[in-house]
Amino acid sequence: MEQYPSKLLESAVNELSKLPGIGRKSALRMALHLLKKHPEEVEALAGSISMMAKEIKFCSECHCISDEEICHICSNPKRVRDILCVVEDIRDVIAIEKTGQFIGLYHVLGGIISPMEGIAPADLTIESLVTRCGTSQIREIILALPATIEGDTTNYYISKKLDGKGIALTIIARGISFGDDLEYTDEVTLGRSILNRQPYAHSLHP
Amino acid sequence: MEQYPSKLLESAVNELSKLPGIGRKSALRMALHLLKKHPEEVEALAGSISMMAKEIKFCSECHCISDEEICHICSNPKRVRDILCVVEDIRDVIAIEKTGQFIGLYHVLGGIISPMEGIAPADLTIESLVTRCGTSQIREIILALPATIEGDTTNYYISKKLDGKGIALTIIARGISFGDDLEYTDEVTLGRSILNRQPYAHSLHP
Repeated sequence: MEQYPSKLLESAVNELSKLPGIGRKSALRMALHLLKKHPEEVEALAGSISMMAKEIKFCSECHCISDEEICHICSNPKRVRDILCVVEDIRDVIAIEKTGQFIGLYHVLGGIISPMEGIAPADLTIESLVTRCGTSQIREIILALPATIEGDTTNYYISKKLDGKGIALTIIARGISFGDDLEYTDEVTLGRSILNRQPYAHSLHP
Repeated sequence: MEQYPSKLLESAVNELSKLPGIGRKSALRMALHLLKKHPEEVEALAGSISMMAKEIKFCSECHCISDEEICHICSNPKRVRDILCVVEDIRDVIAIEKTGQFIGLYHVLGGIISPMEGIAPADLTIESLVTRCGTSQIREIILALPATIEGDTTNYYISKKLDGKGIALTIIARGISFGDDLEYTDEVTLGRSILNRQPYAHSLHP
């Protein structure tokens, strides 16, 4: 532990270094950067994170972060209401919204099942998904979780939970990325992309 | 600009992305991380940086960050008071203190002269250094600024300011680092380390 010349500085560095991906050196750099700013600017940062933690709501339908009881996607009358896209967190919602290719609703799990990190099904919004499928007319659920073992485990768990409810379960396509060289694609991805090959005409309309 | 589902989140991301080395993706990751924490933990972070910005003092002698009017180094009776080590910022003080090789006092410039970044001599504590040299009995000033053009410019500026005051000006040794392979050392460093070679016995006591 370094010897800081000020307890106030030390406390700020301790707190900043708890942020993900921030070590003590970066935290010190940030603290010194803040000290060069006007106190009002630092107050803007402190106030915004404090306010966010206190005031933010989660949409009661899809569990996405929202300023309202129902988020702007769930309350949008133009969205198709019988297709749900299941994602890990809100970053995936932002990423999919940016593609402009999805007009249904989301269901944000808040994580994926991971025994290594101690995340069990009960920590996620899977029960809420099952309830949602019981009360609303859901025709299709698109699983859009990470292509990892944890993602696959969560997909499997959800598929078991929704078994026999007459809902079409689909999964986002896994294959080579746009611009990928086959030579540098890992063999699992390349193998799957051959197994899941599609009619040529279809692939012209991504 | 991404479309965030919440103004509160957007505002926190905007503020976090102003931190040095933090882009919008990292800022979003941080904000979502904070949302998973208890509000008290977020309050601890917000409170510590806000408190630091409001309450922190700078030592009136060496300009180092301090919780008191005079920092714990300047007020330490065991420190030698006639040698000053001139550094860019407090990180250098921490680094030099860690070596345990310096028992004098510091003078923190608060930056180095950089026309590119618009930092002029007047933005630094150089005048205060000159005053300090006039009022205290200073025997030696060690220049410990970065080995860059900006550092060299600042060294030169300080040396001109202190010209004729009868103070020994020294500069920290520049040469190959501990563990360096000569083959991979840049030629400027290697050239200087040959020019500034020292008697062999001396180099046994780093």
